[in-house]
Amino acid sequence: MTDKRAILAANQAFYVAFSTGDFAKLAGLWADDDNISCIHPGWPVIVGRAAVIGSWRDILQSPGRPQITCHEPYAIVTGDSGHVVCIELVEAAPLAASNHFRLVDGGWRLVHHQSSPIAPSMIQAAGNEEQGTPGRVH
Amino acid sequence: MTDKRAILAANQAFYVAFSTGDFAKLAGLWADDDNISCIHPGWPVIVGRAAVIGSWRDILQSPGRPQITCHEPYAIVTGDSGHVVCIELVEAAPLAASNHFRLVDGGWRLVHHQSSPIAPSMIQAAGNEEQGTPGRVH
Repeated sequence: MTDKRAILAANQAFYVAFSTGDFAKLAGLWADDDNISCIHPGWPVIVGRAAVIGSWRDILQSPGRPQITCHEPYAIVTGDSGHVVCIELVEAAPLAASNHFRLVDGGWRLVHHQSSPIAPSMIQAAGNEEQGTPGRVH
Repeated sequence: MTDKRAILAANQAFYVAFSTGDFAKLAGLWADDDNISCIHPGWPVIVGRAAVIGSWRDILQSPGRPQITCHEPYAIVTGDSGHVVCIELVEAAPLAASNHFRLVDGGWRLVHHQSSPIAPSMIQAAGNEEQGTPGRVH
């Protein structure tokens, strides 16, 4: 498996773990140290394993947990690090997201996740330019 | 200079280049290939050097370019990659941001920037917890 395919598989596993509510699987996808961080939509920066993993536990346990699907993932890999940019559809709202990975003992582990709402005006502008997607500009 | 100090210096240079409107300096801080991406606040994902650098040129040339200052930068470095999380104050509004770097020929070069608005409710919550800052949870 190429690095790009492997990092895309890790990225997909992240969204599957979220959608199935599999906390243990989701926690295991992150690097097992404090060199990790996360910025949920609208949240401040979270740093360190306890805070980051704890935030995902809280979100997974929330009765109002939304459905999130990943679309158009695009992988950038260089050596032992890489990231995937993608569009998250949270219910019907598109968010621009990035998931950053580090190669640890042969497996790609998350070190940073960040998801940002896309402004309605930007979605409209992308549509007017007929780019086929509201979430990507090349 | 340690890796953390070096990556924090590169991060600071990025905000100085923006605040002074120095496009050449800002463009030179990014990796010189298409393995770069950016998610401006409210924007969709941007991928590739032409699109990313072009977006910064447009922003710097905009008459309404805001003042952005970087606060509480925190560096995470592992080998040849690392990232800095920080709070951006855009005018008075706090954003949660991350700047991701790769070591290229001995220098830290940007490979991804992402800045996300912090919801007013989260700022209020952080204030109530007396964490001293609206932008960081450890």
